[in-house]
Amino acid sequence: MTYCAAAAVSAGIVFASDSRTNAGVDHVATYTKMTVFEVPGDRVLVLLAAGNLATTQSVVGLLRSRAAEGIHAKTNLFDVATIVGETLREVVSRDGPALEQAKIEPGCNFILGGQVRGEAPRLFQIYPQGNFIETSRETPYLQIGETKYGKPIIDRVVNSDTSLKDAAKCLLVSFDSTMRSNLSVGLPIDLLAYEKDSLKITLRRRIVEGDEYFRELSRLWSSGLRRVFTEVPDLSWQ
Amino acid sequence: MTYCAAAAVSAGIVFASDSRTNAGVDHVATYTKMTVFEVPGDRVLVLLAAGNLATTQSVVGLLRSRAAEGIHAKTNLFDVATIVGETLREVVSRDGPALEQAKIEPGCNFILGGQVRGEAPRLFQIYPQGNFIETSRETPYLQIGETKYGKPIIDRVVNSDTSLKDAAKCLLVSFDSTMRSNLSVGLPIDLLAYEKDSLKITLRRRIVEGDEYFRELSRLWSSGLRRVFTEVPDLSWQ
Repeated sequence: MTYCAAAAVSAGIVFASDSRTNAGVDHVATYTKMTVFEVPGDRVLVLLAAGNLATTQSVVGLLRSRAAEGIHAKTNLFDVATIVGETLREVVSRDGPALEQAKIEPGCNFILGGQVRGEAPRLFQIYPQGNFIETSRETPYLQIGETKYGKPIIDRVVNSDTSLKDAAKCLLVSFDSTMRSNLSVGLPIDLLAYEKDSLKITLRRRIVEGDEYFRELSRLWSSGLRRVFTEVPDLSWQ
Repeated sequence: MTYCAAAAVSAGIVFASDSRTNAGVDHVATYTKMTVFEVPGDRVLVLLAAGNLATTQSVVGLLRSRAAEGIHAKTNLFDVATIVGETLREVVSRDGPALEQAKIEPGCNFILGGQVRGEAPRLFQIYPQGNFIETSRETPYLQIGETKYGKPIIDRVVNSDTSLKDAAKCLLVSFDSTMRSNLSVGLPIDLLAYEKDSLKITLRRRIVEGDEYFRELSRLWSSGLRRVFTEVPDLSWQ
């Protein structure tokens, strides 16, 4: 499996994705699930993918080879999302029948976010069928893949007014919870922060095994949770 | 959906289940998912169910009507689990074909735990196919239904040496996280604690809307998490 999440706050957008892929437990590998299309001063487009790796790679490859007339030519992110959805449909209709014969799921989910010069930053989720939704002020974050373990902490912390740094920290806590409870999600984590109207990437960081900050976050979070747990009074036992 | 969890610690077993059932969002109802078979001094058997409500009710009904020669006659919990699995297979083979024609899933999962006089407390999970597994010292807890939201906290807190009170509190925190992130799991929560070798129920409590202890637990947990979150240092932003 995979875990990817992104949060659109008023200051910008934060993206995070893990790097574990598996086709059976005897075929585990490391692939980044984050692709960045950047034209500094004009657009930053970030794509996170969960699902069939061959499909996501085909979609990314086609988006890249057609970028000049495709995702780099569009004047708004809605049109970019439309192209991603159409390209996904194209790949699924090309590869799907052969995969379905082998009972292999051809589909995948994407998170697409960023900013095109002339409009505000936007964040979309593209479904395996190629249709898509956009975040709103009330629901500013999206998750794909193994979403459930790490959802409670995002629900508690992230809203539209959360700072970019807090949103980034919260996504990392969400990844820590997920990786602790599900082996199919693993390091490295790709983290990217995009500051509104900068039209270039603010921060890109790959968190690998032994990363000092992530280890400290994990340790403090774990000991903090245990401490809060002891502060909650016992149930009266009668 | 449903959420049920149970933890077998050295002092006994704690069980918890929610009470929301739904057949579509326009058919939401409240049913307990916890059934207790108690013969004080001889056995305490607790059954938690997640899945098709008609199937679980049929299984419970058959177990009850045949208890004298069935689950009350057996001298160990392994044999009781075998009967539950067989009864589940019987109901699924009776109702399954008609349900499958309507594309309705006939199956369900059970957690079965307790103690039969003469052996130690034991805890089992029975799968929709009627086969089952037992907890171990290394993996002392089980969950069925919407298990993922509430798993990280149990993974951090519960081990075989956790006290019965802490295990109960941890399950309630796990339910709080689940209910916050998933509407299909809802109050009341049925909570039951069984103290090893007592051969009677130690505590049984139904947590309903407005329950003062649960509200306080929920408030303290939420504010505690936010406090711990602020204690984790920010990512350096270069």
